[in-house]
Amino acid sequence: MRATQLSTGDHGNTFALVFNTGDEVIEQLTRWCQNQGVTAARLTGVGGFSDATVAWFDCDAREFIEIPVTEQVELLALNGDVAELDGNPAIHIHVVLGTRHGDARGGHLIAGRVRPTLELIVDEVPAHLRKRHDPESGLALIALA
Amino acid sequence: MRATQLSTGDHGNTFALVFNTGDEVIEQLTRWCQNQGVTAARLTGVGGFSDATVAWFDCDAREFIEIPVTEQVELLALNGDVAELDGNPAIHIHVVLGTRHGDARGGHLIAGRVRPTLELIVDEVPAHLRKRHDPESGLALIALA
Amino acid sequence: MRATQLSTGDHGNTFALVFNTGDEVIEQLTRWCQNQGVTAARLTGVGGFSDATVAWFDCDAREFIEIPVTEQVELLALNGDVAELDGNPAIHIHVVLGTRHGDARGGHLIAGRVRPTLELIVDEVPAHLRKRHDPESGLALIALA
Repeated sequence: MRATQLSTGDHGNTFALVFNTGDEVIEQLTRWCQNQGVTAARLTGVGGFSDATVAWFDCDAREFIEIPVTEQVELLALNGDVAELDGNPAIHIHVVLGTRHGDARGGHLIAGRVRPTLELIVDEVPAHLRKRHDPESGLALIALA
Repeated sequence: MRATQLSTGDHGNTFALVFNTGDEVIEQLTRWCQNQGVTAARLTGVGGFSDATVAWFDCDAREFIEIPVTEQVELLALNGDVAELDGNPAIHIHVVLGTRHGDARGGHLIAGRVRPTLELIVDEVPAHLRKRHDPESGLALIALA
Repeated sequence: MRATQLSTGDHGNTFALVFNTGDEVIEQLTRWCQNQGVTAARLTGVGGFSDATVAWFDCDAREFIEIPVTEQVELLALNGDVAELDGNPAIHIHVVLGTRHGDARGGHLIAGRVRPTLELIVDEVPAHLRKRHDPESGLALIALA
C-alpha cells in the first residue's frame, strides 16, 4: 500500500491510499491510521477483492454473523469512517461487492484481500469523533458531545 | 438524533448527524434541514435499519413502485442530496441495504427506521440547487441555471 | 448534460453535472473532462438508467466480462475517479443498480444511458493522479509517486 497526501486543509488533510494485490485492507489501514495519528476521518473507495469476509449485525443476539465471500469481486462501494475508541483508531467500513454475474452482495467489512487494486480516499475531519461502548446494542458507537 | 458541526467553510459547513434506534431518517432529516436552514447539500452515510421502504421509479407510468424491506438490514451505502423545491428542503436519498445472508437490495429511500445507529454526513454546497417540476418524467429534478 | 461550478477552492473546484434522459454517461463525462481540463477528480452520483452495461474484471484471464443490464434501474451508488493516462482523462466508475424488485446489481461501468436524471458531483483533487499500465493485471492503475 502506498499513500499520498492530496491536500492540506484547515479542516483536515485528504489522503489517497492505493493498495496492492494481496493487501488486507482493515489491517493495513488500521496500522496506517496509527502511524499517521489519524483518529477522525471519512472513508470512500473503489477497487476489487480476491476474497473477503463481510458481516451482518444481529441486533437481537448482539453479535456479528460472518458471511464469507469466496470469489473474486468488484468493490462497487466502500463507505465508512475512522473514530477514536479508547485512544486507538476504530475503523468502520461497509462494502457493496459485485460478482462475475453482476449480482451485488455486501455487509460490514471484517476483512478484504485486494485484487487487483483498491483506491481509498481518507478525508480527515476536524471535530473529534469518539466512540463509546453502547450497552443496548453491544457495539461501540459514535457518541456526539 | 444528535448533530454536530464538523467544519465551517467558505464553501459551506459540514455536519455529522448520529441517529438513534427507532429514528425515521427522512422525517428527522427534513425537520433538521428546515430548522438549520440547509437547502443545498450532499448526503452520505452508513448504519443500519430495523426495516425500510424503498422504491423504484417506473418512468413509463411516472410513479414510484414501493418495495417494503421487512427485515433488519445493514445500510451499506447512502447517497443523496438536499435541494430546494418551492422554498422547502427536498431530500433525495438512494440506499443499498445488506441482508443477513449478504444479499444487497436497495432503491430510492421512502422511509428507514434506524437500528442500531446511522452516521450521516451533510456537506453543504455553496451554489443553490433548485428543483423544478419536470413534466416529462413527472418528478422534481435539479434544474441548473 | 449541464454543468455548474459549486465551489472554487485552493484544493480544486467542485462541479455538479446534471444529465438528461438519453445521455450516455462515460462518453459525455469524458468529453466534458477533456474540454474542462480535468485530469484528477473524485466522482459520486445518484440517478437512474434506462439500460447499462457493467463489467466484472477477470483477473486470471485479464479481461472484462461484460454484463448487459437491459431494464430500467435506479442508480443507487456511483463511485469513481478521474486520473491521467497518457495525457488524457481516464474515467473509472463503479455502480450499484436497483431493479424494480429491489434487487441490487452492479459492476465496473462500461456505459449507462440516463433516465430520467443523473446528478454527478466532480471534486477535483489538487495532486496529480497518474495511471500507468500494470503488466501484472493488464490494467491501467493509479501509480503514486
